[in-house]
Amino acid sequence: MPIPALELEVQRATPAPTLWSERFAQRTQRMTSSVIRELLKLTEKPDVISFAGGLPAPEVFPLAEVERASEKVLREQGRTALQYAATEGYLPLRELLVRQMARYGIKVKPANVMITSGSQQGLDLIGKLFVNPGDRILTESPTYLGALQAWSAYQADYLTVPVDGDGLDVDKLEAQLRGGPKFLYILPNFQNPAGVTLSLERRRRLVELANHYGAPIVEDDPYGQLRYEGEHLPPLVQIDAEVHDCAKPDAEFTGNVLYLSTLSKTLAPGLRIAWVVAPESVISRLVQMKQGADLHSSTFCQMVAYEVAKDGFLDRHVKHIREVYGERRNAMLGALERHFPQETSWTKPQGGLFLWITLPESFDSTALLKEALDQERVAFVPGASFFPRGGGERTCRLNFSYARPDVIDEGIRRLGNVIKRKLA
Amino acid sequence: MPIPALELEVQRATPAPTLWSERFAQRTQRMTSSVIRELLKLTEKPDVISFAGGLPAPEVFPLAEVERASEKVLREQGRTALQYAATEGYLPLRELLVRQMARYGIKVKPANVMITSGSQQGLDLIGKLFVNPGDRILTESPTYLGALQAWSAYQADYLTVPVDGDGLDVDKLEAQLRGGPKFLYILPNFQNPAGVTLSLERRRRLVELANHYGAPIVEDDPYGQLRYEGEHLPPLVQIDAEVHDCAKPDAEFTGNVLYLSTLSKTLAPGLRIAWVVAPESVISRLVQMKQGADLHSSTFCQMVAYEVAKDGFLDRHVKHIREVYGERRNAMLGALERHFPQETSWTKPQGGLFLWITLPESFDSTALLKEALDQERVAFVPGASFFPRGGGERTCRLNFSYARPDVIDEGIRRLGNVIKRKLA
Repeated sequence: MPIPALELEVQRATPAPTLWSERFAQRTQRMTSSVIRELLKLTEKPDVISFAGGLPAPEVFPLAEVERASEKVLREQGRTALQYAATEGYLPLRELLVRQMARYGIKVKPANVMITSGSQQGLDLIGKLFVNPGDRILTESPTYLGALQAWSAYQADYLTVPVDGDGLDVDKLEAQLRGGPKFLYILPNFQNPAGVTLSLERRRRLVELANHYGAPIVEDDPYGQLRYEGEHLPPLVQIDAEVHDCAKPDAEFTGNVLYLSTLSKTLAPGLRIAWVVAPESVISRLVQMKQGADLHSSTFCQMVAYEVAKDGFLDRHVKHIREVYGERRNAMLGALERHFPQETSWTKPQGGLFLWITLPESFDSTALLKEALDQERVAFVPGASFFPRGGGERTCRLNFSYARPDVIDEGIRRLGNVIKRKLA
Repeated sequence: MPIPALELEVQRATPAPTLWSERFAQRTQRMTSSVIRELLKLTEKPDVISFAGGLPAPEVFPLAEVERASEKVLREQGRTALQYAATEGYLPLRELLVRQMARYGIKVKPANVMITSGSQQGLDLIGKLFVNPGDRILTESPTYLGALQAWSAYQADYLTVPVDGDGLDVDKLEAQLRGGPKFLYILPNFQNPAGVTLSLERRRRLVELANHYGAPIVEDDPYGQLRYEGEHLPPLVQIDAEVHDCAKPDAEFTGNVLYLSTLSKTLAPGLRIAWVVAPESVISRLVQMKQGADLHSSTFCQMVAYEVAKDGFLDRHVKHIREVYGERRNAMLGALERHFPQETSWTKPQGGLFLWITLPESFDSTALLKEALDQERVAFVPGASFFPRGGGERTCRLNFSYARPDVIDEGIRRLGNVIKRKLA
């Protein structure tokens, strides 16, 4: 994973080596600090408008509901909430997630669900369970940086398939499948970073090809409920279940897809509650991995999340988030029309948190970021970071969920200025 | 790590293999389910008296304080508490831990502290950062099962040194150090499982030998504050800092020891808040590992823990826990005197949660557990699980923190009956 020059700006001075540093394992030589995590530090400077992070808008956090839930949990079940708990997660929460997923087409049992400490932990445990050094993982290009960071720790290599406006280009998939990937990693909805959505036709073809080549799929769906226009599309796990004939009521969930989702975008990331869906034989292994990794996710946070989410609050709350983020997406698309030169193009996400810019020919987005920070105090993530095998130098990821519409307009105006100046 | 027959009792039926199961990584072949975690399920049966778990007493959880802290955090900083946060952890909490550790002789800066999701995560990240397949880790024998579970996932091998009533037998250490361990893993205080404490003289000799052989030490100290008799002994990290001359004010913390501790035993395990102390160069790598593993520990839990702990509450609370657990330890020691035959022996822990039984010659503690459950509905952990390279068939770990004194007496009476019956 190439790290842009940007990191020179934010990297802390490395202290002198100690006895310990001679002992770092081989896998650390391939690890690099996450550009995105380091960039979060820049957003703390008050005069910078940052589209770099992937933060939910704090204005939408349901503070009163979380406070009520915390009080209720502590008063009624406090000694359970503060105690050790089962690794697989709090059963009422897993049951609630099963009911919620059923409404989105995913039919599983609580035994198919394990709670994780954020989706990042799901990715890490999948790496721990499946990846031997040198194993190839097939990803979209660009793809989610956190997944690369999780799996590079296990010395994964990558096969990549480009994305266009309809998501992963399935016509280019088969050639890569012949490279023998351990699994495919796919974000079908409003993909991070590109904001594109895999079309229904491509979903069907992707599942068919993956089954044909015996290559499992890891489906990462953090944003599926955050759709601002268009119709919900069936997740890969549902399409695959139909292929494997395990979509019938009472059929055991088997099949070829592991599915990941999270409460970080629909409730609050600070609780660190996400989940993974898998056949029972895989869940029991993932539970072993999680036992070794952190025993279990916070009992208190799981019980608070359950207490907030039950009785339909989360559904009403997601509608509110859709309105707020939909407005911000529109604000960014409008601002881009107004302030960006015609030599640039961008995706029109139907949901999620991110939008993807392609800069004029010969531009380099890492250089542009430096200029944007210096000249106009505005930030984004250079797209090259998201390409596991290089490329994407002309691309940028912009987040539209965090900043308010007027700030979005001002930030896009500033960024447009930098680009126009370079073109002039 | 051998798994006793006990597991046959509790193991769930394994579902048929799927496409996925052919793809488990090589490392999973060495992973086994944790006996302790599985045993926790037995404690749910209401008629079983279980000394098997390692649970704090829920009666001592400070529910009112956690409720007040949760309310204050959500009202005053709710949008921060529910948002993503820095991987290294909440700075005010790290500063508080630095002040607390200084009173126990450990002089470091907040930059030397990373918050983890329980000490289990500290152990896992250390494995991820340092352990290549086949690397040897030198442990006490017996040692903490969770550490073996964390490191076996990275395909570690083990060198072992036996413990006696004064902790690790340093006279047998040098021969094992010649085996070239990647690091030593030591629990100096009220060790889990044996309940023994490393004497001051042995601490000094251990640090000296480790430095002589250039072998770093991972010091795991979850129970250090829970001492019920005798004087506090300096942690290895403090003795080592004196050797490396970095114990002076303002000296940079370097040296040969990584130190782990936790709020799980002094506040509440359900919050999953622990920490690791290391030189800055190691912390920066551990932060990278944690980014890939779960981004950060729950912001909400960290802020609640800080709010509860500040202003001296935690110190007062630890005094209360010491009284409660000290009484329970005395209850168990008294009950053992009353109910156990003279052919058995046990350790007399000065603190912590566990006590260690050695059964009469020719006994097998795994067989005894089965009989104890069948005949008398009482449970413990067979000691063999804690020996990385085998042995310990006559030993048992008993927890004394969870059950009330009268229940402890009854449980020990029952267990004594089973042993006496076998001897008769």
